[in-house]
Amino acid sequence: MGREIERKFLVMSDAWQAAATGSMLLRQGYLSSNAKATVRVRTTDDMRAVLTLKGAVEGISRAEYEYEIPVADARELLGMAEPHVIEKRRHLVPYGGLIWEVDVFLGRHEGLVLAEVELDDEAQVVTLPDWVGVEVTQDDRYNNASLSRADAIPG
Amino acid sequence: MGREIERKFLVMSDAWQAAATGSMLLRQGYLSSNAKATVRVRTTDDMRAVLTLKGAVEGISRAEYEYEIPVADARELLGMAEPHVIEKRRHLVPYGGLIWEVDVFLGRHEGLVLAEVELDDEAQVVTLPDWVGVEVTQDDRYNNASLSRADAIPG
Repeated sequence: MGREIERKFLVMSDAWQAAATGSMLLRQGYLSSNAKATVRVRTTDDMRAVLTLKGAVEGISRAEYEYEIPVADARELLGMAEPHVIEKRRHLVPYGGLIWEVDVFLGRHEGLVLAEVELDDEAQVVTLPDWVGVEVTQDDRYNNASLSRADAIPG
Repeated sequence: MGREIERKFLVMSDAWQAAATGSMLLRQGYLSSNAKATVRVRTTDDMRAVLTLKGAVEGISRAEYEYEIPVADARELLGMAEPHVIEKRRHLVPYGGLIWEVDVFLGRHEGLVLAEVELDDEAQVVTLPDWVGVEVTQDDRYNNASLSRADAIPG
């Protein structure tokens, strides 16, 4: 098992773009999301696919299990997950010794931009770039499983 | 993707035991079972583990995706699935050119014995052994996900 510890913020400006070092298109769908577990299938640039099981959230961390699966399977599983699918372009932005992931949402969530940063432990001090705004780590409306069920941007 | 086509019956006597050729202990839990998809984790003799995603049932068949995963992960995932876990000993019983699987349930479903046979296509003719009784293929109470949620034997 891995453990995912991450913090998430709204993005307030485009200032991150100058520092972005790469991007990828993520398409991800949810076969299940309940109190016990979230089951996510994700393709990256339609070339690589991962099945991820996440346990219940505890504070800002949760158990996470990832398995690489054939892309052909993933495309079918995304079909099975419809309409609970989201699409976003993820940009990698180094800042303060960490790699920030800036997710620019597409489709029905177009206009939403979130920044995530993964931590080694919950107490880790993070230097916030000035292009991030409100922290939404604990705001369930902004977790991807919720977004996949929502019709539009939360607000 | 594979496709699972199977028929399932109640078992009426122990006459299958004489023909059984082997058995294994299955422990399986459900991280999700909704109209869209069932997500099952299963260990076999606590030595091999498989994560299985099944799509919606169509008649007697459904899409099925199987991925081998580390047993250590599976044990943790079974913990996550609690109390929606069932345990059964599966006996392999050759009959009429097919391998029947006779599942003897343990724990809170002790006393329940089901026989399953996997088919190549939905129209395949099956010779029924005389130790099977009522067919329960379409009886949702006897699917394993339902059993994992039930307190006792259906009836």
